[in-house]
Amino acid sequence: PGKLVSKVAEVARKIKKLGQDDPRRVIHSLKVGLALTLISLFYYSRALYKGFGDSAMWAVMTVVVVLEFSVGATLGKGLNRGLATLLAGALGVGVHHLASLSGGIGEPMLLGFFVFLQAAASTFARFFPGIKARYDYGCLIFILTFCLVSVAGYRDREILELAHKRISTILIGGATCVIITIVVCPVWAGEDLQNLVALNLEKIGNYLEGFGGEYFRTSEDEECKDDKSFLQGYISVLNSKGSEESLENFARWEPGHGRFRFRHPWKQYLKIGTLTRQCAYRIEALNGYLNSGFQAPTEIRSKIKDVCTMMSLESGMALNELALAVKKMTRPTSADPHIEKSETAAKTLKTLLKSGIWEDTDFLEVIKVATVAS
Amino acid sequence: PGKLVSKVAEVARKIKKLGQDDPRRVIHSLKVGLALTLISLFYYSRALYKGFGDSAMWAVMTVVVVLEFSVGATLGKGLNRGLATLLAGALGVGVHHLASLSGGIGEPMLLGFFVFLQAAASTFARFFPGIKARYDYGCLIFILTFCLVSVAGYRDREILELAHKRISTILIGGATCVIITIVVCPVWAGEDLQNLVALNLEKIGNYLEGFGGEYFRTSEDEECKDDKSFLQGYISVLNSKGSEESLENFARWEPGHGRFRFRHPWKQYLKIGTLTRQCAYRIEALNGYLNSGFQAPTEIRSKIKDVCTMMSLESGMALNELALAVKKMTRPTSADPHIEKSETAAKTLKTLLKSGIWEDTDFLEVIKVATVAS
Repeated sequence: PGKLVSKVAEVARKIKKLGQDDPRRVIHSLKVGLALTLISLFYYSRALYKGFGDSAMWAVMTVVVVLEFSVGATLGKGLNRGLATLLAGALGVGVHHLASLSGGIGEPMLLGFFVFLQAAASTFARFFPGIKARYDYGCLIFILTFCLVSVAGYRDREILELAHKRISTILIGGATCVIITIVVCPVWAGEDLQNLVALNLEKIGNYLEGFGGEYFRTSEDEECKDDKSFLQGYISVLNSKGSEESLENFARWEPGHGRFRFRHPWKQYLKIGTLTRQCAYRIEALNGYLNSGFQAPTEIRSKIKDVCTMMSLESGMALNELALAVKKMTRPTSADPHIEKSETAAKTLKTLLKSGIWEDTDFLEVIKVATVAS
Repeated sequence: PGKLVSKVAEVARKIKKLGQDDPRRVIHSLKVGLALTLISLFYYSRALYKGFGDSAMWAVMTVVVVLEFSVGATLGKGLNRGLATLLAGALGVGVHHLASLSGGIGEPMLLGFFVFLQAAASTFARFFPGIKARYDYGCLIFILTFCLVSVAGYRDREILELAHKRISTILIGGATCVIITIVVCPVWAGEDLQNLVALNLEKIGNYLEGFGGEYFRTSEDEECKDDKSFLQGYISVLNSKGSEESLENFARWEPGHGRFRFRHPWKQYLKIGTLTRQCAYRIEALNGYLNSGFQAPTEIRSKIKDVCTMMSLESGMALNELALAVKKMTRPTSADPHIEKSETAAKTLKTLLKSGIWEDTDFLEVIKVATVAS
């Protein structure tokens, strides 16, 4: 029993941490609960039930499937679902009509053929990268609705009614989701994207600010006990591509809000993100020197120490300024003096060494490109 | 009209390319069509229809949603859907019974409360990384089934029958998917994972084999017209983390097949993948020197040329041997002589230069670790 108690305590601790890390998770959970309770009420109410019958459960399904964490994801899924249902419903009714003209054994055979053709074509379409990114869910629902309407119609003979009910309940469910997601504590994917990109820039900046001091710390210095978490920050940047791309994808569905217009140039954030990742790759390589214990001779080290530290510090500061500019959506003029200083330092370094430690110079190129892009 | 024709031709060309790149895509599309046609036949047949009524459409839905590209993904989704439906169905019936005891206005209120509680808790659970990776779909279906059973039961009064029908039709649909995906040209996620990891190792190996020659090519040499695609190969390795992880996730659902047992140590592939990516990060940094036009003085270059080229070539060959070993699942003994030679070259290089170009030495560490891991 003691073991069980400690296990429960551990799970409780994890739950608390998960909630504290991002309180929006708790709010999102409550939002899903709220939406489902509302839609259930709709199902309870006798008047509406008579109108829709069993189809009302489509509304429940829509809410469960469509309500996502961010506004963009919810809108994207909702629109995909709504449009695909509409299209497939119309097509299904048409095909059903066509098949019923043949009559007898020909009808199910023709229907089966159309189902096969449609399912294979739509599934293949899902492999296109462009369709996969934005309309994957729509294709799925297209196949589903087409099969349901054309096949169920063979039995029901009330096919138009079925299609109509399915579409209207899905619209009701989708509208509930969209309203709740926008009205109750909205989570904007666009804002998340901006914050992620700025945070990644910041992490790289912090690393560079600290790197000079860390690298040239001679072993005689007392082991510094400071927080070294900034040296680990860049690791999460290395694999940020996936989350940036999905956020961008969601953000494109979002209407204008706050400081963002509709059709905000979201692609630019991806460009900055790519450059940031390139910086992170370089840093990963640089970081190897910190841990390798392989050191340049002391006389060389002391010669380049000041100028290297300066360069690294200044480029770090420049990146932090850039991150701030991304957040505030201003022109990054405040970063310019830092970039200048760090370029001067790099030039001094180049004249100091004709061969040798080149790696740092590459950063500057990257920084310059980053400035241009933002 | 000429514009339209060219547009259609372009789309046709794209479709053809997509199919040629991976013919399994075409097969998969046909499989989906086949499964849906089979399940539709099931719906047409009068005897079965009488048994299940409208619920037969759950079978159609299951096929559309569960049938995925690889065996592992299909099994994972199918098991998730089946188990979640079973659990949620049982819980829904229980809650429904509890609520019906209170009667009157208390019943819908109690049901609404339970729906809210359950939806919020399950949604929150989906934020746990461990649950998200493997049971995300299960949680979704759990919420869905619970709502449907407990809420629909309020109307139907034939709740047990509803739950029973839903479960059996989903089982039929799921079984159809699993059988078709395993019997008709199966696509094993585990095999894909192995190939991906080996391919990535190969790409890095090819890069290193070619790098030495490329870097020390003096500008007097005629511009070599060879295929340089090997210099670009490593770029796709940089962002391979996501696809490797999802393949590993699917592979864990797969039963033993071919040379793979059930519970094959899939995690090891992820480890090799991580090391390969670290190599790729270094190469990204190295690659900067190729394009920067920033060159070491000629006398230094000629001194280190032979030993550097040797080192790069040998480590590249070692990696290619490792890739072959991963594919054939043998001990990578054939790579040992290459690693030895490249280590000797690295030592010679170290004695040649006391400071200077260190970057190449880091590769050896990574290679050693890679050998141990595989």
